[in-house]
Amino acid sequence: MNATYRILVLNGPNLNLTGLREPSIYGSATLQDINDLLTDAASELHVTLDFFQSNHEGCLIDRLHEAVGHYDGVILNAGALTHYSYALRDAIAAIHIPTVEVHMSNIQAREEFRHTSVIAPVCLGSIAGFGSFSYHLAMAALLENLKTFEKEI
Amino acid sequence: MNATYRILVLNGPNLNLTGLREPSIYGSATLQDINDLLTDAASELHVTLDFFQSNHEGCLIDRLHEAVGHYDGVILNAGALTHYSYALRDAIAAIHIPTVEVHMSNIQAREEFRHTSVIAPVCLGSIAGFGSFSYHLAMAALLENLKTFEKEI
Amino acid sequence: MNATYRILVLNGPNLNLTGLREPSIYGSATLQDINDLLTDAASELHVTLDFFQSNHEGCLIDRLHEAVGHYDGVILNAGALTHYSYALRDAIAAIHIPTVEVHMSNIQAREEFRHTSVIAPVCLGSIAGFGSFSYHLAMAALLENLKTFEKEI
Amino acid sequence: MNATYRILVLNGPNLNLTGLREPSIYGSATLQDINDLLTDAASELHVTLDFFQSNHEGCLIDRLHEAVGHYDGVILNAGALTHYSYALRDAIAAIHIPTVEVHMSNIQAREEFRHTSVIAPVCLGSIAGFGSFSYHLAMAALLENLKTFEKEI
Amino acid sequence: MNATYRILVLNGPNLNLTGLREPSIYGSATLQDINDLLTDAASELHVTLDFFQSNHEGCLIDRLHEAVGHYDGVILNAGALTHYSYALRDAIAAIHIPTVEVHMSNIQAREEFRHTSVIAPVCLGSIAGFGSFSYHLAMAALLENLKTFEKEI
Amino acid sequence: MNATYRILVLNGPNLNLTGLREPSIYGSATLQDINDLLTDAASELHVTLDFFQSNHEGCLIDRLHEAVGHYDGVILNAGALTHYSYALRDAIAAIHIPTVEVHMSNIQAREEFRHTSVIAPVCLGSIAGFGSFSYHLAMAALLENLKTFEKEI
Amino acid sequence: MNATYRILVLNGPNLNLTGLREPSIYGSATLQDINDLLTDAASELHVTLDFFQSNHEGCLIDRLHEAVGHYDGVILNAGALTHYSYALRDAIAAIHIPTVEVHMSNIQAREEFRHTSVIAPVCLGSIAGFGSFSYHLAMAALLENLKTFEKEI
Amino acid sequence: MNATYRILVLNGPNLNLTGLREPSIYGSATLQDINDLLTDAASELHVTLDFFQSNHEGCLIDRLHEAVGHYDGVILNAGALTHYSYALRDAIAAIHIPTVEVHMSNIQAREEFRHTSVIAPVCLGSIAGFGSFSYHLAMAALLENLKTFEKEI
Amino acid sequence: MNATYRILVLNGPNLNLTGLREPSIYGSATLQDINDLLTDAASELHVTLDFFQSNHEGCLIDRLHEAVGHYDGVILNAGALTHYSYALRDAIAAIHIPTVEVHMSNIQAREEFRHTSVIAPVCLGSIAGFGSFSYHLAMAALLENLKTFEKEI
Amino acid sequence: MNATYRILVLNGPNLNLTGLREPSIYGSATLQDINDLLTDAASELHVTLDFFQSNHEGCLIDRLHEAVGHYDGVILNAGALTHYSYALRDAIAAIHIPTVEVHMSNIQAREEFRHTSVIAPVCLGSIAGFGSFSYHLAMAALLENLKTFEKEI
Amino acid sequence: MNATYRILVLNGPNLNLTGLREPSIYGSATLQDINDLLTDAASELHVTLDFFQSNHEGCLIDRLHEAVGHYDGVILNAGALTHYSYALRDAIAAIHIPTVEVHMSNIQAREEFRHTSVIAPVCLGSIAGFGSFSYHLAMAALLENLKTFEKEI
Amino acid sequence: MNATYRILVLNGPNLNLTGLREPSIYGSATLQDINDLLTDAASELHVTLDFFQSNHEGCLIDRLHEAVGHYDGVILNAGALTHYSYALRDAIAAIHIPTVEVHMSNIQAREEFRHTSVIAPVCLGSIAGFGSFSYHLAMAALLENLKTFEKEI
Repeated sequence: MNATYRILVLNGPNLNLTGLREPSIYGSATLQDINDLLTDAASELHVTLDFFQSNHEGCLIDRLHEAVGHYDGVILNAGALTHYSYALRDAIAAIHIPTVEVHMSNIQAREEFRHTSVIAPVCLGSIAGFGSFSYHLAMAALLENLKTFEKEI
Repeated sequence: MNATYRILVLNGPNLNLTGLREPSIYGSATLQDINDLLTDAASELHVTLDFFQSNHEGCLIDRLHEAVGHYDGVILNAGALTHYSYALRDAIAAIHIPTVEVHMSNIQAREEFRHTSVIAPVCLGSIAGFGSFSYHLAMAALLENLKTFEKEI
Repeated sequence: MNATYRILVLNGPNLNLTGLREPSIYGSATLQDINDLLTDAASELHVTLDFFQSNHEGCLIDRLHEAVGHYDGVILNAGALTHYSYALRDAIAAIHIPTVEVHMSNIQAREEFRHTSVIAPVCLGSIAGFGSFSYHLAMAALLENLKTFEKEI
Repeated sequence: MNATYRILVLNGPNLNLTGLREPSIYGSATLQDINDLLTDAASELHVTLDFFQSNHEGCLIDRLHEAVGHYDGVILNAGALTHYSYALRDAIAAIHIPTVEVHMSNIQAREEFRHTSVIAPVCLGSIAGFGSFSYHLAMAALLENLKTFEKEI
Repeated sequence: MNATYRILVLNGPNLNLTGLREPSIYGSATLQDINDLLTDAASELHVTLDFFQSNHEGCLIDRLHEAVGHYDGVILNAGALTHYSYALRDAIAAIHIPTVEVHMSNIQAREEFRHTSVIAPVCLGSIAGFGSFSYHLAMAALLENLKTFEKEI
Repeated sequence: MNATYRILVLNGPNLNLTGLREPSIYGSATLQDINDLLTDAASELHVTLDFFQSNHEGCLIDRLHEAVGHYDGVILNAGALTHYSYALRDAIAAIHIPTVEVHMSNIQAREEFRHTSVIAPVCLGSIAGFGSFSYHLAMAALLENLKTFEKEI
Repeated sequence: MNATYRILVLNGPNLNLTGLREPSIYGSATLQDINDLLTDAASELHVTLDFFQSNHEGCLIDRLHEAVGHYDGVILNAGALTHYSYALRDAIAAIHIPTVEVHMSNIQAREEFRHTSVIAPVCLGSIAGFGSFSYHLAMAALLENLKTFEKEI
Repeated sequence: MNATYRILVLNGPNLNLTGLREPSIYGSATLQDINDLLTDAASELHVTLDFFQSNHEGCLIDRLHEAVGHYDGVILNAGALTHYSYALRDAIAAIHIPTVEVHMSNIQAREEFRHTSVIAPVCLGSIAGFGSFSYHLAMAALLENLKTFEKEI
Repeated sequence: MNATYRILVLNGPNLNLTGLREPSIYGSATLQDINDLLTDAASELHVTLDFFQSNHEGCLIDRLHEAVGHYDGVILNAGALTHYSYALRDAIAAIHIPTVEVHMSNIQAREEFRHTSVIAPVCLGSIAGFGSFSYHLAMAALLENLKTFEKEI
Repeated sequence: MNATYRILVLNGPNLNLTGLREPSIYGSATLQDINDLLTDAASELHVTLDFFQSNHEGCLIDRLHEAVGHYDGVILNAGALTHYSYALRDAIAAIHIPTVEVHMSNIQAREEFRHTSVIAPVCLGSIAGFGSFSYHLAMAALLENLKTFEKEI
Repeated sequence: MNATYRILVLNGPNLNLTGLREPSIYGSATLQDINDLLTDAASELHVTLDFFQSNHEGCLIDRLHEAVGHYDGVILNAGALTHYSYALRDAIAAIHIPTVEVHMSNIQAREEFRHTSVIAPVCLGSIAGFGSFSYHLAMAALLENLKTFEKEI
Repeated sequence: MNATYRILVLNGPNLNLTGLREPSIYGSATLQDINDLLTDAASELHVTLDFFQSNHEGCLIDRLHEAVGHYDGVILNAGALTHYSYALRDAIAAIHIPTVEVHMSNIQAREEFRHTSVIAPVCLGSIAGFGSFSYHLAMAALLENLKTFEKEI
């Protein structure tokens, strides 16, 4: 029978400004627009989504901790925390929930400091450069991973 | 009406050994298996795929050059060339065909030298860490990009 | 006619201890003393000031986001976040309000790690080393910038 | 006569998960277990302890500021903030309360990024690698330091 | 009574071209225009200014040496010498006259090699990024410093 | 019943000068004083101690080799060898006796070259910054470790 | 009497796309156009030219080996192989034929990775930045070198 | 009974020039001479050898792939590819045939870039500096390894 | 009709010693000899040349400034200033006259510090390694550039 | 006639523990076992061997000095001194006796600090990764070198 | 018979301030005092001295060039130019007059940037740390060198 | 009256080979020859010398410790230990006897690793490059220092 997967979509600092900030790079859809489209797509896939955005590293960590037992996977766009938050990295490693790193822009093609991700080594994988569609790809990747795992059991 | 997109799937050095080599990391599906599944998925999406694998940097560059006018997008798993082949990078930049970088493993979680991609800055985006499903995500990302572009025109 | 400029003065971690902490470097005036003097000086210049201090990176980012539409400029002493908070940098870049970086001490003459500012590249300019008078200089710099901009329009 | 020393035990990001997370490294005792044992040991030494854990850098800094006048010493396990939080470092330096750096694991034997402590230079000393017993050693070290200081006066 | 401060304004290599060179960055005012405006502002503040520009490192050092006993402060825009002239640094350190480092452009937002200032550690403070108004800010900063010093005596 | 643990206290180059050398940092107690106090403390803990100091890297290695079968633990202050003696590191790794790294001063707060310990990764843990009391803490840490191990058996 | 010099013009990866690729940088002349003009110029100078282009590092090496005994000099535009092909460097060093390094663009003014040439140290000299005219300069340089050598004999 | 081991001797770029190129370093024996002597020595040891040289990275990788099932060991002199070909490294790692790295010259005593071998970590061991005799030593090493392995089975 | 181009040939520190200094590298022709030959070659090309040599960084910068309006191009051998004079770089960038970097020796084949040119990024192109003939090549390159520019107008 | 070569086998710090220490890497043969096998092999080759092991850098240097006039070659496993003992390097360089560097493990495949050998540049060549058989290969390499040298004389 | 050696004593930037500048480091003797004492000492040694000080790199280079044929040796205190003036280095290398590098302070014990001397490799030797007596030692060193050279002739 | 100074001349690893080793660099005088000449020179200066050479870092440290109370100064040629022995550095710093660093060769003109001296920062000063005469200069420097100190008392 069809499982219903629960996925937490976590957005970090400044992503609440999406659609306002540098639309030439990020497009003009707001974070709410992106989330709505993602919810639509999720419903067809028997997935329920919860969304959380914060500019506070600590709040993101708290939310990851609370995810244990409530979510099957996490989609995480950590914003600029990607590049230095070892605390966020430790949180991901600690909760043992498969997590996919997402970036809307192609971070390897931007400033030098954006080339390093301190969270990538503890994530399942990374997707970068496809605008808001990066979240859709992440959801697909997570589902594929969860289904494979289910089959193995 | 439905466009039929043509996509070239390019695999670099050692990827012909997929399924034989370190199955704990790459799974036991061979490159042919992966390609067959990808072809199945493509046919449902009105996409035609061609496949090419080579252990020769020069052959991969030749193939990229010949792609001009024949393909709408490229999915490229450059293998270890990812980390030093500036010639491959220049080829991608030169042909102006949207190209998605793909890795089966999570390269950020492996040896230090695999953390640097010299081709990422000239690709549309990057997907890493989802096994053979990375190719499926890349195809989806490419399609989304092509459709958006079409709408804009 | 005389415009009335609204400026937000933002102070980061540990600056609430100013006047208590290492007075040989920072002087004995408290942050409140500094703000009062700055308010006096502002009133003569047809400028209104709001003050906000926080030890939380996230609160500073929130405050920067909320500044859009309410302030003409920002004076920012990011404290030690200056040296690693790429999230703060992204916030400054996103809001498109002219921001001046301020430091009371001459950061280039202190420890090595204080020589790098990750926020400087997205600020209008930087002022460092003049004690609490650095804020006065920043206000003057911001005013000059705003007036020039006004004239151009 | 016997002085009663007051010590603040501060734990940073993810340490609330202790006992759940990677027990092979950290053991199976929870943070509460550790604190209880520490309290028992403290009571025999005429020491009173207060505990505070947070995943928020800003909250840890706030708590350090509030410690002035209320505590004779601080035991600090900053978690992954150890490796990049210059703001935390400045807070420790500002409050002039003797602070001991503590780690349960031997951080020098783990990933490269854990070899650097930006807070060590402003602490009294550092203890790493003895599991939850690291806290007991830190308390002993702090007491010795406080008693020596008292004698000198 | 009102003191009359004497300040030397020193400009290094290529600053004689100001107004001709990259006006999009530096504005169209020539160095003479900038000096005239600065002289006007100085006269209202009971300050007398002398100006000297040279493309020769040695001449700038000679002038700094001769400043002893004749000037109360120095405003120094060292141009590209900022980034490598340790000889200029030694000259500033040797004469014990308060010196303010000035840059018209925001050097932290330009090429990598402009991010390092070898003279900053021996200056009172630094001001960068406000066009020709940087000189005015420097004069204000110097005055504040001199008045404070006077009061202390 | 109470086990009697045997611990070897090993001191490296220049530590024979303790008490003579830079007393502002190391205190005025000689190495003999330190050892005597440590012996007193040990006797209460059912621990027997042996002491060995040498300025010769080779002698320290020889002594570590001979420790096999005779000691349950080692307390090692390697002095400046800490920073470059990979041979000492290999000796510690080879003998499989739990070893605690000790420093009297807070090495992270001194010269840059003292921030690196090449022996830390093969030690149980490290203690630095508490003067001669560092040895007492190391003995306590070692005892705790040995008792835990005993219980597990 | 007039010697007739034989020169091999070798072009590396992606140079077959010249004229198609980024014409704003490389101009619109194709490689064939460039070669034709070079042949015209050569004929006036009693020089015969052969041309070879390949995207394969190995083919370029093979061709260099075969050049022994057939050519008096080599003009080499190694494309992006310039920056990492130590194998090409060894080939040049091995054949003992004077070789001139050529680049159409000013590689020092482009991306960081193009600033390093691993082949320059084994070439006679380098010419970069003059578009297709760089080849003409290289031919002139080679001729001058060959004539000087002839005179010495 | 005596096993007959099959060994593939693989030579990379420019090694076909051996005997012609810098004889002061490499001696005057050609690659054919070296192979002949090696064949003689092999026949006495019940070893059969096949030889392959190529200046093409891709051809060397192809040959390594084809070696699976046909050879018991590989002797590899990768020439300058040693220093950057991660693709070659991956090929060696993939085929699981014991491989010995060989260099005729003492690469640690030559240019800096020759001090790094990217293939060494996936080889059985390395031999460098003994001229053509390095190959003989490699054959001996490989045999010893194969015999030990056989005994264990 | 034939334009007459005016070119300034600028030589930096120690180049006045050419012909005296290390003739094995630079040949025995003096700077005057080189200039005379260059003048002869120029007269056939309808080019007038002026020469200036100085050991003073400042004098070279002054001369570049004065070149505006009097010369169509500059040939610059900056000697060792090539490797650190950012002031010279700024001068070249400021005057907007096409400038060709010249070196007689192959600087990439000499000491490490000669591998970096801080002026190359603001020059038209670079020529190195052809002895005094490098100047002739530079003149040819400059002429080609000026003619192309003329045609475009 | 047959020469009898005298070879000194020198082993550095911790190698006396061979067979006891990490047998998974080094095998279970003791240093005495290894030496005995090597002596057996030597006797067949008309070679006499002397053995010396020390954990003291100084003793190894003394022994190398005394080797002059008594040995035709040296086989040196310097243990961890390999990575930092420039004094040992100078000793090897000074005595002018051909020396072969030996390692039992594949040092390039272990920790980063083991990748650098400061003695390799002054040795004849290096052999690493073949367990105790590395010594046999070194003896063969040394003999080959000595015989070649003899023939040349 | 006694030769009379002619030595040029060259002092670089800021050394004219000696005796005024940081007397705690450099002593209170002025440069004239130092020169007078040196002249006295020279007269007893049959040496004639000329002195030259300049803050201009170019003047120092000019003076070195003019020294050819007039001086037997040079004593050079290049001040801060020591750390970056490759032009000065080239001048010393070009004139082939034995030159001794001198520093009054122990430059290795001061700031990091003073640890590198770009001129040392082309000098006879270096003397640093003995105040003005460093010049006397340099004169003695130069004399010894000249006499040895004379004897050899 | 004339004081009689007692100086210890300490020579490190390999210096016992002086006169035998690389005479082109170090000359043909043996260490005994050098010492004898130094003794002769010392006797004229009312100085008594003791000599000690060892290849053991530990012995050199022991000897430095024993020097306290017996010598007024130390002349130290640490050989290759200069570049890494932080233990030797600590010994020099600990004994508070003025020590002069000596090298016979110009270490800045040799291999890169010889450019760093870890002992220089704790020595009085350094002398390098004058062959055995470096010791004579060191003795003169030490005497000057001791006499100055005496006068001050």
